[in-house]
Amino acid sequence: MKTNPGRFFEDYSLGQVIAHAVPRTVSGGERALYHALYPARHALYSSDEFARSCGLRAAPMDDLIAFHTVFGKTVPDISLNAIANLGYAEGRWLKPVWPGDTLRSESEVIGLKQNSNGKSGVVWVRTRGLNQQGDTVMDYVRWVMVRKRDAGAPAPETVVPELKSTVPAADIVVPEGLDFTRYDFTLAGEPHRWGDYAVGEKIDHVDGVTVEEAEHMLATRLWQNTAKVHFDATNREDGKRLIYGGHVISLARALSFNGLANAQVIVALNAGAHANPCFSGDTVRAWSEVLDKAETAAPGVGAIRLRLVAVKQGAPDFALKGEDGKYLPEVLLDLDYWALMPM
Amino acid sequence: MKTNPGRFFEDYSLGQVIAHAVPRTVSGGERALYHALYPARHALYSSDEFARSCGLRAAPMDDLIAFHTVFGKTVPDISLNAIANLGYAEGRWLKPVWPGDTLRSESEVIGLKQNSNGKSGVVWVRTRGLNQQGDTVMDYVRWVMVRKRDAGAPAPETVVPELKSTVPAADIVVPEGLDFTRYDFTLAGEPHRWGDYAVGEKIDHVDGVTVEEAEHMLATRLWQNTAKVHFDATNREDGKRLIYGGHVISLARALSFNGLANAQVIVALNAGAHANPCFSGDTVRAWSEVLDKAETAAPGVGAIRLRLVAVKQGAPDFALKGEDGKYLPEVLLDLDYWALMPM
Amino acid sequence: MKTNPGRFFEDYSLGQVIAHAVPRTVSGGERALYHALYPARHALYSSDEFARSCGLRAAPMDDLIAFHTVFGKTVPDISLNAIANLGYAEGRWLKPVWPGDTLRSESEVIGLKQNSNGKSGVVWVRTRGLNQQGDTVMDYVRWVMVRKRDAGAPAPETVVPELKSTVPAADIVVPEGLDFTRYDFTLAGEPHRWGDYAVGEKIDHVDGVTVEEAEHMLATRLWQNTAKVHFDATNREDGKRLIYGGHVISLARALSFNGLANAQVIVALNAGAHANPCFSGDTVRAWSEVLDKAETAAPGVGAIRLRLVAVKQGAPDFALKGEDGKYLPEVLLDLDYWALMPM
Repeated sequence: MKTNPGRFFEDYSLGQVIAHAVPRTVSGGERALYHALYPARHALYSSDEFARSCGLRAAPMDDLIAFHTVFGKTVPDISLNAIANLGYAEGRWLKPVWPGDTLRSESEVIGLKQNSNGKSGVVWVRTRGLNQQGDTVMDYVRWVMVRKRDAGAPAPETVVPELKSTVPAADIVVPEGLDFTRYDFTLAGEPHRWGDYAVGEKIDHVDGVTVEEAEHMLATRLWQNTAKVHFDATNREDGKRLIYGGHVISLARALSFNGLANAQVIVALNAGAHANPCFSGDTVRAWSEVLDKAETAAPGVGAIRLRLVAVKQGAPDFALKGEDGKYLPEVLLDLDYWALMPM
Repeated sequence: MKTNPGRFFEDYSLGQVIAHAVPRTVSGGERALYHALYPARHALYSSDEFARSCGLRAAPMDDLIAFHTVFGKTVPDISLNAIANLGYAEGRWLKPVWPGDTLRSESEVIGLKQNSNGKSGVVWVRTRGLNQQGDTVMDYVRWVMVRKRDAGAPAPETVVPELKSTVPAADIVVPEGLDFTRYDFTLAGEPHRWGDYAVGEKIDHVDGVTVEEAEHMLATRLWQNTAKVHFDATNREDGKRLIYGGHVISLARALSFNGLANAQVIVALNAGAHANPCFSGDTVRAWSEVLDKAETAAPGVGAIRLRLVAVKQGAPDFALKGEDGKYLPEVLLDLDYWALMPM
Repeated sequence: MKTNPGRFFEDYSLGQVIAHAVPRTVSGGERALYHALYPARHALYSSDEFARSCGLRAAPMDDLIAFHTVFGKTVPDISLNAIANLGYAEGRWLKPVWPGDTLRSESEVIGLKQNSNGKSGVVWVRTRGLNQQGDTVMDYVRWVMVRKRDAGAPAPETVVPELKSTVPAADIVVPEGLDFTRYDFTLAGEPHRWGDYAVGEKIDHVDGVTVEEAEHMLATRLWQNTAKVHFDATNREDGKRLIYGGHVISLARALSFNGLANAQVIVALNAGAHANPCFSGDTVRAWSEVLDKAETAAPGVGAIRLRLVAVKQGAPDFALKGEDGKYLPEVLLDLDYWALMPM
């Protein structure tokens, strides 16, 4: 058979390194599409001039363009036969991605655990995105539940990797040259600086976006994510197309501009859960909670740890989970990340 | 509160200058999206080679990309609490915008008039779009009706600016170097030159486009226009998303290629009214009327003043207003502008 | 009348050369949109680095971007009054199109045959796409049935051109410098090389895409194809918009990555039929059949002749025509082309 059947649980082994296919050169076209697909307005990624005033050579590609591009390449090897995307951890952005850069991805299997039913198992991978110089531009750990091809295949030795619950502030990598001492708050859109945010503070980002099929499919294809469920209305019994979780991440992050316009640079992904599926017609809103703050060595640059929650319909009431400990049905996304802000 | 509540009527004062947020670098990505979103075919903006044959260094960005980008930045400061967009005047394009340019906007309050009901007022602003050299690439006057936060706030002194009903032909700025003496009518798509159009002539542009939600949202986001009504289906009681008026302007202008293929450069916006709202599912058509003609000092370059009318459904019958002086319900847009044509 | 009524059958004459309007500069924006509109993943067109490792100076624009751009320009002159697009033959890609290139098109009338009903006729044209250096980047023959303006107009002398049923392998032009001897099958996404494919082999490409109105209109506008039927829902009695046949070609070609990831370069179009119309909501799938194989003089480069079939709904069963010799109703496209693969 010439077509890719995807890997099954028994096809993974500890320490295995998978080089993912189809490197991709990104440019101003991807940037413009990102701005058309999401209400993205962070000044550092919108204006070459603004980026230069912050010590960078030009506006880098949005940090989530890097994430989606790197992630998309892993789909045919990691999640084609996945039952569920279980979590993210230890994600770090290590180098900006510039227009003209070519990205590729590779993943190392760092954990395996067969489920007690013998029909599936959990695979942990550490995925790295590399540019044309071979530099790692980002890496993150992701774990997924994957079907077995043959229930009779022997279970591998169980190895559950020890993962940090949060990327320590000391491990954050600030883009080389970043300097917020001459930061223009007027051009950036909001006056609130790092010192204005308190741990525990919650922000309703107010705006909502009703999602269309054409939009999420354009986005998901742009990242060369090939998972059938996003494109093929005949794939599910209810005739719905599941929206790529990363689309919701980018929507929520862009909506968070309203209240977090100065949380410019995403530097770490501590954890993330796609709490409930998102479908066309849903109106997505977002709220954030300040989880932590830290200083950095870069001039004028502070770090802020944020919980970003996407919900569907209604104004957010900051509720996340029910009494049963499960996510409420209106919660789409619960993301924990570090961003950089002017101090 | 960290989020932007927008300005209310009493927040504006005469002479106040508002620097709008989020500068934006535009490039070939925005151009390609413009061609995907609108049936834009004017050769000067489609082909670097054609533009060079007309004395320019390359194809500039579409004039309406400049307008939408400059306008979009004003939305959070000018029209977030607007009840109605009342009009445009004295708009001029002063410099081409090139791929790689970074645009920002600022507005000066030039008029204020509280409404007799005491609950709202009219604000006139002159908005300027600036490039990275600080050159003004375009400016225009716009007036909007804005809600008061507090009906008891004192009324400002009434100042209604005197605005020209039309930009005088003598005030038109022709892009530096533009020369239509070697203009290629075959490549441009139509043989009709400036001399072939008569004042009073009306042109049915024939083609129609049925608009989809995904399209107008992609466009409106691309210009970083954040007005809720365009994106959030829960915002209106009827569950409809109002299409950004500028989307209709670009649609109608692009449709006008068929009959006005040589009206290449938009140089002035004399007046404009968004006569009726446009919604997804509407089929937009357009017609034009030649209102005036003028010569310019540039070689082979004539100016033509056009009324551009967008209508929904049915073939246009050139009707604009009813006996009551109000726009007919099928009229979406009535725009008065100057364009440059080969003589 | 200022608008373009299109040409009717009696407006064509043998040997007539029509220069089509609106040259177009293509860039990274068009490439990004192509990746957003189609699940395109062929590495040579996705990554500048991969293309360099194959002897090219950078990733060229997708071969079908060249085709659609060249084709789109012909629509106002060739198919505005066409009743049917009857076929393609002798298509060849002769030069890669690079970001920044400006394309224009011209067509020569090479055949004419009035239909027996006297109301229409068939026009054969050979269309050439040219870049800014005047080099032909591709050419192909296309024939369409066109309405007569006046049934009483005299019939032209019947000339039916002799067309090759297939572009001979010897006539294929390999892009200058192409070298597959260091081809990276891992990065390309599949291990199957030219030698692994057998004539007669059929491949079900597995994946499906459900098509939305916004997507096909974005695509069709991007190629400046102005045919009303694709955009105007009031144009047909059933209120449906006919999807541009080229959109189905690109969809099917992109889907064929899964099983033909290494069929990188499209070099010839032997024949093509748009068997049935495609509409929004259809789920498009594809299968291929290996029709022929040939060697080339370029290092490591083999040619493979493929039938690419697009179907709607259901898994393909490789059925093409019924007992009556007509295409089955689920068949959308039957395309015969040559591609280049690593040997």
